[in-house]
Formats: sequence, structure tokens, C-alpha cells
Amino acid sequence: MADDKKMVESITSMDEDFARWYTDIVKKADLIEYSGIKGCMILKPAGYAIWENIQKELDGRFKATGVENVYMPMFIPESLLNKEKDHVEGFAPECAWVTVGGQEELQERLCVRPTSETLFCDLYSRIISSYRDLPKLYNQWCSVVRWEKTTRPFLRTSEFLWQEGHTVHATAEEAEERTIQMLNVYADFFEQVLAIPLVKGRKTDKEKFAGAEATYTIEALMHDGKGLQCGTSHNFGDGFAKAFDMTYTDKDNKIKHVHQTSWGVSTRMIGAIIMVHGDNDGLVLPPRIAPVQVAIIPIQQKKEGVLETAAALKEKLGAFRVKVDDSDKSPGWKFSEQEMRGIPLRVEIGPKDIEKNQAVIVRRDTREKVFVSLDEIDTKIGEILEKMQSDMFERAKAHLEAHTYESTDWDDFKEKADTKPGFIKAMWCGELDCELKIKEEAGLSSRCMPFAQETLSDKCICCGKPAKKLVVWGKAY
Amino acid sequence: MADDKKMVESITSMDEDFARWYTDIVKKADLIEYSGIKGCMILKPAGYAIWENIQKELDGRFKATGVENVYMPMFIPESLLNKEKDHVEGFAPECAWVTVGGQEELQERLCVRPTSETLFCDLYSRIISSYRDLPKLYNQWCSVVRWEKTTRPFLRTSEFLWQEGHTVHATAEEAEERTIQMLNVYADFFEQVLAIPLVKGRKTDKEKFAGAEATYTIEALMHDGKGLQCGTSHNFGDGFAKAFDMTYTDKDNKIKHVHQTSWGVSTRMIGAIIMVHGDNDGLVLPPRIAPVQVAIIPIQQKKEGVLETAAALKEKLGAFRVKVDDSDKSPGWKFSEQEMRGIPLRVEIGPKDIEKNQAVIVRRDTREKVFVSLDEIDTKIGEILEKMQSDMFERAKAHLEAHTYESTDWDDFKEKADTKPGFIKAMWCGELDCELKIKEEAGLSSRCMPFAQETLSDKCICCGKPAKKLVVWGKAY
Repeated sequence: MADDKKMVESITSMDEDFARWYTDIVKKADLIEYSGIKGCMILKPAGYAIWENIQKELDGRFKATGVENVYMPMFIPESLLNKEKDHVEGFAPECAWVTVGGQEELQERLCVRPTSETLFCDLYSRIISSYRDLPKLYNQWCSVVRWEKTTRPFLRTSEFLWQEGHTVHATAEEAEERTIQMLNVYADFFEQVLAIPLVKGRKTDKEKFAGAEATYTIEALMHDGKGLQCGTSHNFGDGFAKAFDMTYTDKDNKIKHVHQTSWGVSTRMIGAIIMVHGDNDGLVLPPRIAPVQVAIIPIQQKKEGVLETAAALKEKLGAFRVKVDDSDKSPGWKFSEQEMRGIPLRVEIGPKDIEKNQAVIVRRDTREKVFVSLDEIDTKIGEILEKMQSDMFERAKAHLEAHTYESTDWDDFKEKADTKPGFIKAMWCGELDCELKIKEEAGLSSRCMPFAQETLSDKCICCGKPAKKLVVWGKAY
Repeated sequence: MADDKKMVESITSMDEDFARWYTDIVKKADLIEYSGIKGCMILKPAGYAIWENIQKELDGRFKATGVENVYMPMFIPESLLNKEKDHVEGFAPECAWVTVGGQEELQERLCVRPTSETLFCDLYSRIISSYRDLPKLYNQWCSVVRWEKTTRPFLRTSEFLWQEGHTVHATAEEAEERTIQMLNVYADFFEQVLAIPLVKGRKTDKEKFAGAEATYTIEALMHDGKGLQCGTSHNFGDGFAKAFDMTYTDKDNKIKHVHQTSWGVSTRMIGAIIMVHGDNDGLVLPPRIAPVQVAIIPIQQKKEGVLETAAALKEKLGAFRVKVDDSDKSPGWKFSEQEMRGIPLRVEIGPKDIEKNQAVIVRRDTREKVFVSLDEIDTKIGEILEKMQSDMFERAKAHLEAHTYESTDWDDFKEKADTKPGFIKAMWCGELDCELKIKEEAGLSSRCMPFAQETLSDKCICCGKPAKKLVVWGKAY
């Protein structure tokens, strides 16, 4: 029991120090190991398995909309990166540069991709010539590199895994439609699979992607009241098309510029899962994304028939992702470990249970315990997992709603910004000056202009001039 | 029809120029696009989809043996790469080096991984301490970079996609067992899924992996009689363990060095598929790996009911990967395209067929045509795909056997090497000098010392001294 205690005691409580609580979970749930390379993390099996499930689920949803996967080189020649002015200004400061290859100094430096717009544009400019070639709906799963000064597991690392979709369309309308469509694919995935409720909206010009005409975003609220940008979808208009000379001959025989989008989500999502669902005993994984959904833990496993029953139970639960923990650790240790790793359900089964033809099911999120007959345990587990999934979403939604405030007065706004961690809805005149002042004086940035616009007042929260938009403000990771 | 002709005519025949035939297929089957970065290729949807199927199939087979996936950083600090002497000598000449990050000169150069042994060793040295931590069976799917001077799509590129498995074991026996086990996983996959027969064996010391104690290989024979090393599995013994101080405390409380393996296959496999199965009309994909298994091509598709019947047929064939080509190209063009892309079966359906409640099925490999009733077409297609899969393997096997020669005489050996493209089995004394002389004078390298050893003679083919091993010799990509 000394060991069990040690494992539990070693997590910082989230009220005491949220940042430490987070990194404790990341390490103790065995998701990540730090590497010897500054800002680069190692995704261990428990962490990578979450990413694999995310990939599988999202990839299916992308393909259902006609998207095809490709793989582009990881290097971008400096001259190619320089082609779109806003884009290079946004990314050049964070680039890692290859200058030597095969023992020779390269004639032109190669950037390790921070994102691949320029490569896709270069490809598209060569393979698109007619309206018949449109649309092109390409995506790639890869890692990208951004030389970050301060890093944090999953949230901001020098190298991270992501997907980047890049589409090309004949018309501006079609591009805008695709931009919103992919944002909705992300949003549905977050809500249905990750059990994370969102605010969907458009970024202000200050916060939009380098080179985009419009950036749309999904924003989630963490336990500590900070926001996390979870995914973005950009409409590039024909900006890149002009820089890269991407044209096509239309049905009317005229040469026109294409319209483009890009959209991406990354391993940052795993950070969101931790900070939306985790508790002081560790990770809590939504059943639909959990690599292991059920941990069967035998009690008094050396007694005759216990391990056999556990194995038979695993068989019976073939519809779920199940693991039997038959290691020689104590049941208490195994419970802590299952809780730390966020496995949704624990099934305890010992000699007394076997006698009664039952098992104990314990939910990770509520600790709710039920005794279930072994005859109907598969049906029951399916029901409990479903219930847990929807309860987790409802709890997160209640948290988001309870921590979303409104303000129509500048002093009240600053007071709330200071004392109430969460999102604040307030009106905005649309001027960069006010956005900067709100950041400076209240410490909040614009998370987005939500699609669900409301009119709280006709005045800007900051300058009092006529308001143009409702903005959701918050502190963010 | 002019267009149809153009498409067909533009492939070089493989007898005329095998290398051009190969690159023609790569381009015309739309697998790859060259990029602006020297030696780096773009995997287009048709090429990447083959890789996705390979990944899915292999990943399942790995996991069935207990392997877990992880993700390691793409950068290796120079000092880490330098830790194992043979290893760094093997790879340093081909490294790409990052020297600038975030606008600052780095204090230590970072190599873009050419392979990740050193990173895995560094990780394992930190997370393994007891026999309870063993074995560790990690794998990663990623891209690696090797600065190659001459490149060729799929076969040798500066960046390529692969998987690298790295395992750690308590004993030498266990490591050897795993090395062979993974070679067999590859071999089964090649034979069952890619329909490619192999020679399995051990590499000579000259040909083994930099840092390995033993390298095992699967070697395939291409249409042109050249060999292709398709996958390797290495037993590192405790060499890396000593260089990286990887120890564990055993049950007997003694501190011991671990034993290691690594094994990998890459997108090179796609090159093997092309060169083993392709013909003068393009790619021929084995049904089990083909992203699209059946192309339904409507004839006179503007006539009433044709497209509807094609769509209904697709529904009926839900157990297979099916595409209906309802584009406005001519049927002839569509046939050429389906053949070029190597789609295993074509189903032609037009008004006359509909009248007779039938369709025409054409096999890509043999061009065999059968008329099949629409009522039983799903069963029939399943059968034909299975038959095609096994026929493709048998044909490739017959080709391998017909082009594998034996020799016990040096002049005969050189004559065969010169005039008979293929593998030559001959005895070898085990000395590097003879291996080098065979390369120099006969132009052949040792492909492997096959597991299936035979005694053709008791003398080395080259020097006449006592023979130690049967070796399979050949020209190789």
C-alpha cells in the first residue's frame, strides 16, 4: 500500500497549481517523455494511441467529404517560402533551417516545414490547368516544426504531429463553403467524440493566419478558465493563387485564379482532453477516444478460476477495447494506475463475485459503482460507456456555460477579467487599437467573433464607439 | 480515340528501356509528382493510398505480436548520433543538418533522422531499469532523410516514409527470436498481400546494417532480373546497449546489458510492386493492396438507366473497394486509365448488358473477360479477385524460379552474371576479398546467405578454397 499511496500523492492538485497538475498527468499517465532535444517530446504508447484513434476517426470523416491524402516533402526551399509576403513574415522567425546536406553546404537553405501552404501551392500550380481539375481536396498527416521559445507538452512544442488540409476551388463561394464545412467536421468530432463543447467563430484580423483572408476557429474552455484554440480553418481567397500564379481555364475559356482553403488540428487536442476532463486522480478519457475502454482487474488473482474468468470476460466484451491487468501488482496499485491513465471503466472481479456470477463496474469520472450480472455485462458496459460519454460532454458544457460571462461596462469587464476565469462576451468596434488595449489593460485576447452573434449593447466595451461585433474574450494557452 | 491512343503510346515498353518504363508508370499511374526539392518526391493520392493500405495491414500484424507505436523527435543532436562508432560512420555522410533555429545559430547541429536507433537507445536507457520493464516493443511510422546523390522514385529518395521497430530484450536469445519473427512478419505480408515471392536470408558482414551484429533480409527479383532488398531486420546484440549504457537489474539482482533489435520497411515496397507485377500497359496492383479493387465503367452512360445501374452495382459490391467512373471521358480512355492505374478488375456495363441482366468483368493481369449475371456478380467478383491474387503470386514465383541459376565454376559464373539477368546461387568461402572480387569481376553483390542452405560444391566459386555458405548473388537496386 505504500507504493499505491506514493503514486496518488505525487499528483499536484489542480487547485494548488494547475500547470503542475497538467505536467504531472502528462508524465504519470505515461503519455509523454521529454527528449534531449529542446522543445521536442516523445509520444509514448499511451499518448500515441490516443493520437491514432483521433487520426482514424478524423481521417474517416475527411474522406467522407471527398478528401484524399498525400505526402509532401518536409523541406521548403527558402525562395518558395518567401513567395507570399504575409505568410513568410508569420513563419520565418520560427523556422529551423537545414544548411548542410550530405557533407556539403547547400546552395539554398531549406526550412523544415512549419506548415505546407507553399509546397501545396507549388504543386497545384503545376497540376491544375482546367476547371476539370477542380476541386482538389488534399490532406496530409505529418509533423511540423516551429522553433518555440517556451514549450509545454501537447500545447506548444517545437515539433508536433498534425494534419493539414489544402483545397483548391474554382470559385470564392466554394472555397468559403469548404472552409466552414471543415470547421464543422472538427466541431462535430470534438463534441461527439472528445466530449468537448466549443465556441465556433471567426478570428479577428489580428489573430488570423498569416496569409489568410479569413480564419475560423473552434475554442474550448479549460478547467482553469483559460481558452484553448483547438483547430482552425482558413479561407485564403486568391491571395496565394496570385503569389504562386495558380490559374485554370474555366468553361468560358477565360483564365482565372483559383480559390483556396487550409485547415488543421494537431496533438494539441490531447492537451484539451486532459484540461477539460482530467481530475486530481489523473486523466479521464472520453470512452469514444480511449485506447483502452475497460480495464478488468482481477481480485485475489491467484485463487482458482479468477484469471480464467477475467480472460473469459474479456472475450465476452469483444465489442470494446479491453485490457486485463494480470500483472503481479496489488489491486490498489492497479486501481490507481487505471485511474491515472484515464481508462473509462474498471471491472473488478474476485472469488466472491464469481460465486455470485457478478462483477463490479466502476466509472472513472463519477466513481459510481454497480454490481452487474456476468450474463448481461456486455450490454451493461455498452450502456455505461454511452452514458459516461454524454455525461462528460454535459459536464463540460455546464462548465463552459457557468464560466462564460457578459459585460457591457469597461470597469466591470476589467473586474471580471481579473476575478472570473473564463470567457467574457462583450461588444467591439472592430478596431485593432481597442483589441490591443483590451489585451494590455484587461489581459484578455479576442478568442473569436462567435457565429452565434448577440447584441449586448450598441457600444464597444473599450472605446464606447458604435459596436460592430460580439467578441468572446479570454486568456488563452 | 486520339486521346486514348496518346495515353497508351506514351509508355515506354519495358523491353525497350526498363528504367524509363518504370518512371513512365510512376508518373502516368499518378503515383508521384517530382518536387522542387532535390531527391524529394510528392506522393499523390493514388500512391499514398497504396501506402495507407500497406500501413494498415502491417500495423495490425505488428500489434498482433505485442508491438506498440510511439513517436520520436525528427532531430538527433550530433553528440547523440556519434555515440555508436559504426553507426555514425554508416550514416553521417548522408545526413541533412539543421544549424539554425528560430533565427539563431544552434550551439549543436541537429541531424534530421536518417534512422532513429540513437533516439530509441537514449529513451530506453532512461526508462528501463528492471527486468520488469522488459521487453519493450516500440515502433514508429515516420519519414527519414538520407542525402542521396542519385535518386529514383520509391527506390531511393532523399526523404522517404517507413516504419522502424526498435525492441529491447533481457536476453540474446529473445532478441534473436524477435529479429527472425519480424522478418517473417514482413515475408508473410509480401507473399500474402503483395503477391511477391522472396528469398529470405542473412546479409554478409559487408552488407549488414551499420552497428548491427546480424542483418536479415528479404530479397525480391524484379522483372528485369535485378534484385531489390525489400526489408531488413537487425539483431544489435548488446553493442548499442554498451555505447548507450542501457542496463537493467535482473531477477538475480545483477546489472546486465539489454539486447536489441530493429527492423524496417519503406515506400520502396511500392517500387517492388511496380517492378514485379507491372506490364507494358501500366501498373498491376495485387487485389489485396489495391486502393480501388473494381472500376465500374458505364458504356453509353447517357442512355437511360445506365448510371443508375452502375450506382446500384456499386452498392451491391459493398464488400469491395469500388469506384464508378462516370466522368465525361470516352470508355476507351477510361479503360486505358484503369489499366494504367493497375485497378485489378474492370466491370463494363451498358444498355445491352442491362437488357441481359449481365455485366462484363475484365481482369487487369490476364485481360480475361467474363460475362456474369448481375444476380451473382458479388460472389463472382470475390472469386476472381482471390484467383487473381494467387495467380499473380504464382506468376512472380515462376519468374523468380526461372531466373535463379546455380553455378559451381568461376567462368560459368561470370558468363551467367553477364548474360542471364537474375539471381545466381553459388558457394562462398566467407572472405571479404572474394566478395569484393565477385563484385568487381562479375558485377554481382551478395544479396544474402539464404536460410534454405544447399551444398552445390565444397569450394568457393571465386577462390576455390573450402566453401562456408551458399550465397545468392545478383545485381541490385
